Amino acid sequence: VEEVVWQGRWLEMVRKDQWEFVRRRKATGVVAVMAATPAGELLLVRQFRVPMGADAIELPAGLVGDNGEEDPLVAANRELEEETGWRAGKLSFVCTTPSSAGLTCETVQLVLATELVHVGAGGGIAGEESIKVETIPLGEVHGWLLRQQAEGTLVDAKIWAALWLLENFEKAT
Amino acid sequence: VEEVVWQGRWLEMVRKDQWEFVRRRKATGVVAVMAATPAGELLLVRQFRVPMGADAIELPAGLVGDNGEEDPLVAANRELEEETGWRAGKLSFVCTTPSSAGLTCETVQLVLATELVHVGAGGGIAGEESIKVETIPLGEVHGWLLRQQAEGTLVDAKIWAALWLLENFEKAT
Repeated sequence: VEEVVWQGRWLEMVRKDQWEFVRRRKATGVVAVMAATPAGELLLVRQFRVPMGADAIELPAGLVGDNGEEDPLVAANRELEEETGWRAGKLSFVCTTPSSAGLTCETVQLVLATELVHVGAGGGIAGEESIKVETIPLGEVHGWLLRQQAEGTLVDAKIWAALWLLENFEKAT
Repeated sequence: VEEVVWQGRWLEMVRKDQWEFVRRRKATGVVAVMAATPAGELLLVRQFRVPMGADAIELPAGLVGDNGEEDPLVAANRELEEETGWRAGKLSFVCTTPSSAGLTCETVQLVLATELVHVGAGGGIAGEESIKVETIPLGEVHGWLLRQQAEGTLVDAKIWAALWLLENFEKAT
Protein backbone atom coordinates (compact mmCIF):
# COMPACT_ATOMS: atom_id res chain seq x y z
CA VAL A 1 0.00 0.00 0.00
CA GLU A 2 1.25 3.42 -1.00
CA GLU A 3 0.51 6.58 0.98
CA VAL A 4 1.23 10.24 0.21
CA VAL A 5 2.58 11.53 3.53
CA TRP A 6 3.48 15.09 2.47
CA GLN A 7 2.49 17.23 -0.45
CA GLY A 8 4.11 20.45 -1.60
CA ARG A 9 3.70 22.61 -4.65
CA TRP A 10 6.08 20.66 -6.92
CA LEU A 11 6.92 17.50 -5.00
CA GLU A 12 5.23 14.92 -2.81
CA MET A 13 6.57 12.36 -0.41
CA VAL A 14 5.34 8.78 -0.65
CA ARG A 15 5.60 5.95 1.88
CA LYS A 16 5.35 2.35 0.68
CA ASP A 17 6.25 -0.66 2.81
CA GLN A 18 9.45 0.44 4.62
CA TRP A 19 10.36 2.92 1.88
CA GLU A 20 10.09 6.68 1.63
CA PHE A 21 10.52 8.31 -1.77
CA VAL A 22 9.82 11.56 -3.55
CA ARG A 23 7.63 12.06 -6.62
CA ARG A 24 7.13 15.06 -8.91
CA ARG A 25 3.56 16.32 -8.83
CA LYS A 26 3.45 18.38 -12.02
CA ALA A 27 5.49 16.46 -14.54
CA THR A 28 5.28 13.08 -16.21
CA GLY A 29 9.04 12.83 -16.69
CA VAL A 30 12.32 14.53 -17.43
CA VAL A 31 14.21 14.68 -20.72
CA ALA A 32 17.92 15.35 -21.16
CA VAL A 33 19.30 16.09 -24.60
CA MET A 34 22.54 14.92 -26.21
CA ALA A 35 23.16 17.41 -29.00
CA ALA A 36 26.26 18.24 -31.01
CA THR A 37 26.41 21.22 -33.36
CA PRO A 38 27.33 20.79 -37.07
CA ALA A 39 30.86 21.86 -36.05
CA GLY A 40 31.10 18.91 -33.64
CA GLU A 41 30.63 20.74 -30.36
CA LEU A 42 28.61 19.30 -27.48
CA LEU A 43 25.96 21.62 -26.04
CA LEU A 44 26.04 21.84 -22.25
CA VAL A 45 24.44 24.20 -19.77
CA ARG A 46 25.72 25.74 -16.57
CA GLN A 47 23.36 27.02 -13.88
CA PHE A 48 23.18 27.57 -10.15
CA ARG A 49 21.19 24.77 -8.52
CA VAL A 50 19.45 25.76 -5.28
CA PRO A 51 19.34 22.21 -3.79
CA MET A 52 23.10 21.86 -4.40
CA GLY A 53 24.01 25.42 -3.38
CA ALA A 54 26.46 25.42 -6.29
CA ASP A 55 26.82 25.65 -10.05
CA ALA A 56 26.29 22.47 -12.04
CA ILE A 57 27.17 21.56 -15.62
CA GLU A 58 24.47 19.41 -17.19
CA LEU A 59 22.97 18.28 -20.46
CA PRO A 60 20.18 20.61 -21.62
CA ALA A 61 17.15 19.18 -19.82
CA GLY A 62 13.68 19.87 -18.54
CA LEU A 63 10.37 18.58 -17.34
CA VAL A 64 7.85 16.84 -19.57
CA GLY A 65 4.16 17.56 -19.16
CA ASP A 66 4.42 20.32 -16.56
CA ASN A 67 1.92 22.33 -18.62
CA GLY A 68 -0.39 19.51 -19.65
CA GLU A 69 0.10 16.34 -21.68
CA GLU A 70 3.14 16.46 -23.93
CA ASP A 71 5.26 14.32 -26.24
CA PRO A 72 8.68 13.86 -24.59
CA LEU A 73 10.47 14.52 -27.90
CA VAL A 74 8.57 17.81 -28.31
CA ALA A 75 9.57 18.72 -24.75
CA ALA A 76 13.18 17.81 -25.53
CA ASN A 77 13.31 20.15 -28.51
CA ARG A 78 11.63 22.96 -26.56
CA GLU A 79 14.12 22.66 -23.71
CA LEU A 80 17.05 22.43 -26.12
CA GLU A 81 15.96 25.64 -27.84
CA GLU A 82 15.09 27.53 -24.64
CA GLU A 83 18.34 26.63 -22.95
CA THR A 84 20.86 26.61 -25.81
CA GLY A 85 19.29 28.46 -28.75
CA TRP A 86 19.64 25.40 -31.01
CA ARG A 87 16.73 23.45 -32.52
CA ALA A 88 16.95 19.87 -33.75
CA GLY A 89 15.62 18.54 -37.06
CA LYS A 90 15.62 15.00 -35.71
CA LEU A 91 15.22 13.54 -32.22
CA SER A 92 15.29 9.95 -30.99
CA PHE A 93 15.16 8.13 -27.67
CA VAL A 94 18.34 6.44 -26.54
CA CYS A 95 17.65 5.27 -23.01
CA THR A 96 15.84 5.98 -19.75
CA THR A 97 17.58 6.18 -16.39
CA PRO A 98 16.32 6.34 -12.82
CA SER A 99 17.67 9.52 -11.14
CA SER A 100 18.24 7.73 -7.82
CA ALA A 101 16.28 4.47 -7.71
CA GLY A 102 16.07 4.28 -3.90
CA LEU A 103 15.13 7.95 -3.34
CA THR A 104 12.70 8.90 -6.11
CA CYS A 105 10.57 7.40 -8.86
CA GLU A 106 11.89 10.11 -11.22
CA THR A 107 13.36 8.86 -14.48
CA VAL A 108 15.21 10.81 -17.15
CA GLN A 109 14.86 10.00 -20.84
CA LEU A 110 18.08 10.58 -22.75
CA VAL A 111 17.32 11.92 -26.21
CA LEU A 112 19.72 12.18 -29.15
CA ALA A 113 19.20 15.41 -31.11
CA THR A 114 20.68 15.80 -34.60
CA GLU A 115 20.37 18.14 -37.62
CA LEU A 116 20.80 21.19 -35.37
CA VAL A 117 20.12 24.74 -36.51
CA HIS A 118 20.95 27.86 -34.51
CA VAL A 119 17.79 29.90 -33.92
CA GLY A 120 18.46 32.07 -30.85
CA ALA A 121 20.60 32.88 -27.86
CA GLY A 122 19.34 30.31 -25.35
CA GLY A 123 19.83 31.01 -21.68
CA GLY A 124 16.49 29.72 -20.41
CA ILE A 125 13.17 31.46 -19.84
CA ALA A 126 13.89 35.18 -19.29
CA GLY A 127 13.30 36.19 -15.67
CA GLU A 128 12.90 32.57 -14.49
CA GLU A 129 16.13 30.83 -15.41
CA SER A 130 19.74 31.94 -15.65
CA ILE A 131 21.54 29.46 -17.85
CA LYS A 132 24.93 29.80 -19.49
CA VAL A 133 25.43 27.78 -22.68
CA GLU A 134 28.75 25.94 -22.93
CA THR A 135 29.72 24.83 -26.44
CA ILE A 136 32.67 22.46 -26.20
CA PRO A 137 34.36 20.55 -29.07
CA LEU A 138 33.56 16.86 -28.54
CA GLY A 139 37.21 15.84 -28.33
CA GLU A 140 37.83 18.37 -25.57
CA VAL A 141 34.77 17.65 -23.39
CA HIS A 142 36.46 15.02 -21.22
CA GLY A 143 39.40 17.22 -20.19
CA TRP A 144 37.16 20.27 -19.84
CA LEU A 145 34.82 18.43 -17.46
CA LEU A 146 37.74 17.25 -15.33
CA ARG A 147 38.92 20.88 -15.06
CA GLN A 148 35.41 22.11 -14.17
CA GLN A 149 35.23 19.47 -11.48
CA ALA A 150 38.68 20.37 -10.13
CA GLU A 151 37.48 23.99 -9.85
CA GLY A 152 34.48 22.94 -7.74
CA THR A 153 31.72 22.94 -10.36
CA LEU A 154 29.44 19.91 -10.15
CA VAL A 155 29.36 17.75 -13.28
CA ASP A 156 26.30 15.60 -13.96
CA ALA A 157 27.37 12.02 -14.77
CA LYS A 158 24.81 11.89 -17.58
CA ILE A 159 27.36 13.92 -19.58
CA TRP A 160 29.95 11.13 -19.25
CA ALA A 161 27.17 8.71 -20.24
CA ALA A 162 26.40 10.91 -23.26
CA LEU A 163 30.04 10.82 -24.37
CA TRP A 164 29.87 7.02 -24.36
CA LEU A 165 26.48 6.85 -26.04
CA LEU A 166 27.38 9.39 -28.75
CA GLU A 167 30.31 7.15 -29.71
CA ASN A 168 28.65 3.76 -29.31
CA PHE A 169 24.87 3.94 -29.59
CA GLU A 170 24.45 4.26 -33.36
CA LYS A 171 27.03 1.55 -34.00
CA ALA A 172 25.24 -1.04 -31.85
CA THR A 173 21.71 -0.41 -33.13
CA VAL B 1 16.33 30.81 4.33
CA GLU B 2 15.97 27.05 4.41
CA GLU B 3 13.14 25.27 6.20
CA VAL B 4 12.54 21.55 6.84
CA VAL B 5 8.86 21.17 5.98
CA TRP B 6 8.55 17.39 6.42
CA GLN B 7 10.66 14.81 8.17
CA GLY B 8 10.45 11.05 7.80
CA ARG B 9 12.62 8.22 9.01
CA TRP B 10 15.13 8.31 6.12
CA LEU B 11 14.31 11.46 4.18
CA GLU B 12 13.32 15.05 4.82
CA MET B 13 11.80 17.70 2.61
CA VAL B 14 13.39 21.13 2.50
CA ARG B 15 11.94 24.41 1.22
CA LYS B 16 14.30 27.18 0.17
CA ASP B 17 13.21 30.29 -1.78
CA GLN B 18 10.78 28.89 -4.39
CA TRP B 19 12.41 25.45 -4.32
CA GLU B 20 11.42 22.18 -2.73
CA PHE B 21 13.99 19.41 -2.50
CA VAL B 22 14.63 16.17 -0.66
CA ARG B 23 17.58 15.38 1.61
CA ARG B 24 18.75 12.12 3.16
CA ARG B 25 18.67 12.25 6.96
CA LYS B 26 20.96 9.35 7.85
CA ALA B 27 23.74 9.44 5.31
CA THR B 28 26.48 11.86 4.34
CA GLY B 29 26.60 10.64 0.74
CA VAL B 30 26.32 7.80 -1.72
CA VAL B 31 29.12 5.85 -3.38
CA ALA B 32 28.89 3.85 -6.62
CA VAL B 33 31.68 1.51 -7.58
CA MET B 34 33.22 0.87 -11.01
CA ALA B 35 34.91 -2.51 -10.65
CA ALA B 36 36.15 -4.99 -13.22
CA THR B 37 37.32 -8.48 -12.27
CA PRO B 38 40.83 -9.72 -13.22
CA ALA B 39 39.10 -11.49 -16.15
CA GLY B 40 37.84 -8.13 -17.47
CA GLU B 41 34.20 -8.42 -16.43
CA LEU B 42 32.24 -5.44 -15.09
CA LEU B 43 30.40 -6.06 -11.81
CA LEU B 44 26.78 -4.92 -11.86
CA VAL B 45 23.85 -5.55 -9.56
CA ARG B 46 20.19 -6.19 -10.26
CA GLN B 47 17.52 -5.56 -7.64
CA PHE B 48 13.86 -4.64 -7.32
CA ARG B 49 13.51 -0.94 -6.49
CA VAL B 50 10.35 -0.06 -4.58
CA PRO B 51 10.17 3.60 -5.76
CA MET B 52 10.43 2.42 -9.39
CA GLY B 53 8.16 -0.62 -8.98
CA ALA B 54 10.61 -2.49 -11.22
CA ASP B 55 14.01 -4.16 -11.42
CA ALA B 56 16.99 -1.93 -12.02
CA ILE B 57 20.55 -2.70 -13.12
CA GLU B 58 23.04 -0.48 -11.34
CA LEU B 59 26.65 -0.15 -10.29
CA PRO B 60 27.26 -1.66 -6.84
CA ALA B 61 26.42 1.27 -4.55
CA GLY B 62 25.40 2.27 -1.08
CA LEU B 63 25.09 4.96 1.53
CA VAL B 64 28.05 6.53 3.32
CA GLY B 65 27.85 7.29 7.00
CA ASP B 66 24.45 5.70 7.70
CA ASN B 67 25.97 4.06 10.79
CA GLY B 68 28.15 6.94 11.97
CA GLU B 69 31.08 8.80 10.43
CA GLU B 70 32.78 6.87 7.65
CA ASP B 71 35.42 7.21 4.92
CA PRO B 72 33.64 7.04 1.54
CA LEU B 73 36.30 4.70 0.15
CA VAL B 74 35.80 2.33 3.09
CA ALA B 75 32.06 2.45 2.44
CA ALA B 76 32.67 1.76 -1.25
CA ASN B 77 34.66 -1.39 -0.51
CA ARG B 78 32.09 -2.58 2.07
CA GLU B 79 29.22 -2.13 -0.42
CA LEU B 80 31.21 -3.78 -3.21
CA GLU B 81 31.87 -6.82 -1.01
CA GLU B 82 28.33 -7.03 0.43
CA GLU B 83 26.67 -6.75 -2.96
CA THR B 84 29.08 -8.60 -5.28
CA GLY B 85 31.38 -10.74 -3.12
CA TRP B 86 34.48 -8.99 -4.50
CA ARG B 87 36.89 -6.86 -2.43
CA ALA B 88 39.22 -4.24 -3.90
CA GLY B 89 42.93 -3.82 -3.09
CA LYS B 90 42.87 -0.26 -4.36
CA LEU B 91 40.12 2.40 -4.58
CA SER B 92 40.19 5.93 -5.93
CA PHE B 93 37.73 8.76 -6.51
CA VAL B 94 36.87 9.55 -10.11
CA CYS B 95 34.05 12.07 -9.94
CA THR B 96 30.98 13.22 -8.05
CA THR B 97 27.57 13.66 -9.63
CA PRO B 98 24.32 15.21 -8.45
CA SER B 99 21.52 12.60 -8.61
CA SER B 100 18.96 15.15 -9.83
CA ALA B 101 20.18 18.68 -9.17
CA GLY B 102 16.69 20.28 -9.09
CA LEU B 103 15.06 17.59 -6.92
CA THR B 104 17.59 16.60 -4.25
CA CYS B 105 20.91 17.65 -2.78
CA GLU B 106 22.06 14.01 -2.99
CA THR B 107 25.36 13.43 -4.76
CA VAL B 108 26.98 10.15 -5.76
CA GLN B 109 30.73 9.66 -5.66
CA LEU B 110 31.96 7.38 -8.43
CA VAL B 111 34.83 5.24 -7.19
CA LEU B 112 37.20 3.15 -9.30
CA ALA B 113 38.02 -0.19 -7.62
CA THR B 114 40.95 -2.27 -8.82
CA GLU B 115 43.03 -5.27 -7.66
CA LEU B 116 39.84 -7.27 -7.00
CA VAL B 117 39.78 -10.53 -5.09
CA HIS B 118 36.78 -12.83 -4.77
CA VAL B 119 35.88 -13.31 -1.11
CA GLY B 120 32.23 -14.35 -1.01
CA ALA B 121 28.91 -14.73 -2.75
CA GLY B 122 27.60 -11.15 -2.52
CA GLY B 123 23.85 -10.60 -2.81
CA GLY B 124 23.50 -7.92 -0.16
CA ILE B 125 22.75 -8.13 3.56
CA ALA B 126 20.89 -11.41 4.22
CA GLY B 127 17.24 -10.79 5.07
CA GLU B 128 17.41 -7.09 4.13
CA GLU B 129 18.49 -6.99 0.51
CA SER B 130 17.93 -9.26 -2.47
CA ILE B 131 20.60 -8.48 -5.01
CA LYS B 132 21.63 -10.51 -8.03
CA VAL B 133 25.23 -10.05 -9.18
CA GLU B 134 25.71 -9.66 -12.93
CA THR B 135 29.26 -10.28 -14.18
CA ILE B 136 29.50 -9.11 -17.79
CA PRO B 137 32.63 -9.06 -19.99
CA LEU B 138 33.47 -5.37 -20.57
CA GLY B 139 33.21 -5.65 -24.35
CA GLU B 140 29.70 -7.07 -24.06
CA VAL B 141 28.25 -4.64 -21.49
CA HIS B 142 26.93 -2.15 -24.06
CA GLY B 143 24.88 -4.68 -26.02
CA TRP B 144 23.78 -6.47 -22.85
CA LEU B 145 22.45 -3.21 -21.36
CA LEU B 146 20.51 -2.43 -24.54
CA ARG B 147 18.91 -5.89 -24.35
CA GLN B 148 18.05 -5.45 -20.66
CA GLN B 149 16.44 -2.13 -21.47
CA ALA B 150 14.49 -3.61 -24.38
CA GLU B 151 13.15 -6.25 -21.97
CA GLY B 152 11.87 -3.56 -19.58
CA THR B 153 14.63 -3.56 -16.97
CA LEU B 154 15.74 -0.09 -15.91
CA VAL B 155 19.40 0.71 -16.56
CA ASP B 156 21.11 3.37 -14.46
CA ALA B 157 22.95 5.85 -16.72
CA LYS B 158 25.91 5.82 -14.34
CA ILE B 159 26.80 2.48 -15.97
CA TRP B 160 27.14 4.16 -19.39
CA ALA B 161 29.20 6.85 -17.64
CA ALA B 162 31.36 4.12 -16.09
CA LEU B 163 32.02 2.56 -19.51
CA TRP B 164 33.32 5.93 -20.71
CA LEU B 165 35.33 6.63 -17.58
CA LEU B 166 36.91 3.14 -17.46
CA GLU B 167 38.22 3.76 -20.98
CA ASN B 168 39.18 7.41 -20.63
CA PHE B 169 39.83 8.43 -17.05
CA GLU B 170 43.29 6.95 -16.46
CA LYS B 171 44.52 8.20 -19.83
CA ALA B 172 43.62 11.82 -19.12
CA THR B 173 44.98 12.05 -15.58
